[in-house]
Amino acid sequence: MIKEAILHIPDSSYAFALDEKTVILRLRTKKNDIDRCTLFYGNRVYPTSPVPMQQLPMRKVGADDLFDYYECRLVSGFSRIFYGFLLEDKSSQLYYYGDEFHDSVLNDRTVFYQYAYVRREDIPDVPEWASSAVIYQIFPDSFASDRCSIRMESQTCKTAEGISCSCRCGGTLNGIEKNLDYLNELGINCIYLNPIFTANSYHKYDTADYMSIDPCFGTAQDLKALVAACHRRGIRVLLDGVFNHCGPDFFAFRDVLENGSRSAYTDWFYHLEFPLHCETPPNYAAFAYVPEMPKLNTGNPETAAYFCKVGKYWIEQADIDGWRLDVANEINHDFWRQFRAAIRSVKPDAFLIGEIWEDSPQWLQGDQLDSTMNYRFSNLCRDYFAQRSISAEEFGQHLTAMLLRYKEPMTYAQMNLLDSHDIPRFLSKCGEDARRLKLALFFMLTFVGVPSIFYGDEAGISGTAEAEYRQAMPWQNYPENGELYQYLKALITLRKRHPSLTSGTFQPVPVKAEGVFAFRREAAGERLLVVLNNSDQWRQVSLGEECTSLQPLFGQDGKTAQPFTFAPMEGRIFKC
Amino acid sequence: MIKEAILHIPDSSYAFALDEKTVILRLRTKKNDIDRCTLFYGNRVYPTSPVPMQQLPMRKVGADDLFDYYECRLVSGFSRIFYGFLLEDKSSQLYYYGDEFHDSVLNDRTVFYQYAYVRREDIPDVPEWASSAVIYQIFPDSFASDRCSIRMESQTCKTAEGISCSCRCGGTLNGIEKNLDYLNELGINCIYLNPIFTANSYHKYDTADYMSIDPCFGTAQDLKALVAACHRRGIRVLLDGVFNHCGPDFFAFRDVLENGSRSAYTDWFYHLEFPLHCETPPNYAAFAYVPEMPKLNTGNPETAAYFCKVGKYWIEQADIDGWRLDVANEINHDFWRQFRAAIRSVKPDAFLIGEIWEDSPQWLQGDQLDSTMNYRFSNLCRDYFAQRSISAEEFGQHLTAMLLRYKEPMTYAQMNLLDSHDIPRFLSKCGEDARRLKLALFFMLTFVGVPSIFYGDEAGISGTAEAEYRQAMPWQNYPENGELYQYLKALITLRKRHPSLTSGTFQPVPVKAEGVFAFRREAAGERLLVVLNNSDQWRQVSLGEECTSLQPLFGQDGKTAQPFTFAPMEGRIFKC
Repeated sequence: MIKEAILHIPDSSYAFALDEKTVILRLRTKKNDIDRCTLFYGNRVYPTSPVPMQQLPMRKVGADDLFDYYECRLVSGFSRIFYGFLLEDKSSQLYYYGDEFHDSVLNDRTVFYQYAYVRREDIPDVPEWASSAVIYQIFPDSFASDRCSIRMESQTCKTAEGISCSCRCGGTLNGIEKNLDYLNELGINCIYLNPIFTANSYHKYDTADYMSIDPCFGTAQDLKALVAACHRRGIRVLLDGVFNHCGPDFFAFRDVLENGSRSAYTDWFYHLEFPLHCETPPNYAAFAYVPEMPKLNTGNPETAAYFCKVGKYWIEQADIDGWRLDVANEINHDFWRQFRAAIRSVKPDAFLIGEIWEDSPQWLQGDQLDSTMNYRFSNLCRDYFAQRSISAEEFGQHLTAMLLRYKEPMTYAQMNLLDSHDIPRFLSKCGEDARRLKLALFFMLTFVGVPSIFYGDEAGISGTAEAEYRQAMPWQNYPENGELYQYLKALITLRKRHPSLTSGTFQPVPVKAEGVFAFRREAAGERLLVVLNNSDQWRQVSLGEECTSLQPLFGQDGKTAQPFTFAPMEGRIFKC
Repeated sequence: MIKEAILHIPDSSYAFALDEKTVILRLRTKKNDIDRCTLFYGNRVYPTSPVPMQQLPMRKVGADDLFDYYECRLVSGFSRIFYGFLLEDKSSQLYYYGDEFHDSVLNDRTVFYQYAYVRREDIPDVPEWASSAVIYQIFPDSFASDRCSIRMESQTCKTAEGISCSCRCGGTLNGIEKNLDYLNELGINCIYLNPIFTANSYHKYDTADYMSIDPCFGTAQDLKALVAACHRRGIRVLLDGVFNHCGPDFFAFRDVLENGSRSAYTDWFYHLEFPLHCETPPNYAAFAYVPEMPKLNTGNPETAAYFCKVGKYWIEQADIDGWRLDVANEINHDFWRQFRAAIRSVKPDAFLIGEIWEDSPQWLQGDQLDSTMNYRFSNLCRDYFAQRSISAEEFGQHLTAMLLRYKEPMTYAQMNLLDSHDIPRFLSKCGEDARRLKLALFFMLTFVGVPSIFYGDEAGISGTAEAEYRQAMPWQNYPENGELYQYLKALITLRKRHPSLTSGTFQPVPVKAEGVFAFRREAAGERLLVVLNNSDQWRQVSLGEECTSLQPLFGQDGKTAQPFTFAPMEGRIFKC
């Protein structure tokens, strides 16, 4: 047994509660190294010694290239649990507890791993609706100014406060509302809007006024109307909260610019050196080194309170359903805790998604964010579908490791994406091969986590430069008639009908056919098999014994007997 | 290279900031598996791509039985860092970043590990004085009622509110104050008092009134006088905060008992089932299953606010210097964050120590507690000094693993203890062999972390049953004249004089002499070598080339040339 490979971390994604009665425990081992893993556990506060111990077999729930992952669901009946692991291979057995290996179980309840108390405050409470969300991300300037159209006019205007605002394509909130039929028809049930508050730039990440809608996009009334119209159709709305930094016209920064070190707002910012200068690099902390984006000091309770107020304000004013939070990883953890509490106090099922590109378990413990924009998902899809630089087996291994990095409720809420306003269009990464984009969409809509579609992916938008991937929606091409839109619509319809796709387990299924990737999704009473041929050849696919009776659910071929013949780049779903 | 052994965890004790300029990064590898480990890093927001990268050699700072630990101190000059590790052995090199292995460094700054921002709010701020504290823990009922004496009278009395209070030996706050000479002479500079608030039992862990001193022990005025007298002598005072549960006479629980589900305080408690009954086990959550200790619901903001108020009250009233927090691991994380903020708002260098017996990095991230009662330390000392069930090498390995489990500032603040009010006296574990206790004290006073002496250990108290190990202080034996007291006094004096003992690094030094354990402590400008012979034989000890000129600093022999002759159970310190 390779002891060095064995990992368990208490009070982490290796040990967490789903509810007050159910605790998930995980253990990592070297791949194919042990035969059996068993949890043993007891009641930490059992009145006498020795404490009776019980055992629970653990199940191998996944593997990556190096490791196997074991898991069990413990319903113990007590709130204070000590536990450890019994590991067995052909020739030996070993106990692992308290981060140490032992030949036997000591009669001392304090030396084991401790789940000190299944504290209800520390149980993740991801909004229930999140796992069944299908997000459509809209870059407001680029989407629409009327039904199936966009003005295509850049513009600059000034607010009453003298804030200069600009846009490039002319999209508006009202334009979005006028195209809800289009979105409704596609089947999405959540819209995430890039920033819409008053700001200088067309992208609005340099907020001047968090309490008003940018005049290029419309008014607070327009937002209210949009959200109300969305809600009537069962569509939720998320706004983009840029609280890491503001724009130069934000009142507090203006005050600091005017009054220097005498300003009452110096502590709203970070690392100011007076006199301030706004060249690049600025002599104050900023987003990257952009002088127009001074970093906010969310460690200052006054500043934190202000942004918690902003967070609540738009829920109270416009009934929005949550926030996507810009540059979340550069903000102090405690601000997010405060923000979460503030938001949940006015909307208990508001959804909080952080922009964090790297793996982010420390933000997803349950006390801060519910979800992050899953760029690791995006990169894996790029590698597998667009560039084909990794094999089906590797793809499955990376996905498994990704899922097991987080507490279970968070994996179902992760915002999976192929592209966004910050990276080239996935279609470009595919060398404009729409079949690859389609297969990646097929995968995203059948995988664990919230699928998120960047506006226009369904209309075949491509581009690697910012101006390209943020280009105007090509309404002129009647995207709703296109193959991508129709394919996506069918996938969304399917996803919404099958709980195993939104809340089921994920298990790669080995297939002996090059370039073919298969996995099972399983939830109470339903078991689906998803198979995709990520190659340019026709493939004969046998799915083994465990899939004896398969009913075709999605895909072209009505055949129920193995082997199945898959066309190049074809994805199919079976019920089994 | 054994990939499975390699571990790095971002935003943890493997990656943390000491200040806004200095970040500590650690990597774990299989023991003796690699030859060299190098950090590579760059500026996450460098304006152009590719980002220039820099390298920094990592140092092997420790090893346990399975792993080597590498560490570096990164002073990069920027606040947003991406990084990874280059691992080399004789035949190969490998890059490790983003939890994956690579043959080369990709030109994509987002795929590496990210230290997203060196956020000052997330930098641990352990009180500076903690590392040089030497704690003396007093169980108030058992210590003193007058100068060098204790009444030895059990007593029961009733407060004006009808709360029945009892004691067994008759110790008082005033009695402690009258013996400050004794403590001052010993050299300790911090007192931790077990609970002193009004409560039924003699141990006072069933608090009835958090705002008053138990009449058996004295008055609020006595506490003020005691703290003032301590402060005049440079002694700080910590109280015991029992916020996980209260006693049956706590006003809120009384109200619930009286008014049942109509009480305004039902949400102050946990899992109440009406009608309440107070048999064992009770039909409400409690400490273990003790009906007299109903569990408090610190997830209720009102309850949390009340106990934050308690925490501040005694600082404001009596100027105490911090809290030892009972059953800290059964309380929700967020309560500790609130409590920390509340306490720090009235005393920025107040010290917070949690009662957590198991490894507790998740409580010691910097946002909750500064320290915990280090029972792992206690167990290792038991195994090595008392039972001799582990070798010197194993002892060193376990200590290393223990230290590297935490962020560095916390290791210097951990409350190391040999025994406490909750476990048998160390002397009993040593089979009454005082030499073993002395050597363990020698070790505790020269090791990393805050030494903590349970009252009477210096007077030779032993005992394995509660009534024994909490027995009255044997003033009649003139403990201040005893060998233990004098030995401990000498060690404390030494510790206070040598910053390397309080804030220096720890490095075991291999010694070829059975039962002999040696280690280096090193701080700016000072390097000490601590050597102890944990065997019953005389030992010849050669300390190798790295210790060519050694000046004796503590111990009997004035010899400066190697080999040194160590008496059985002898400890010595050299300057090198």
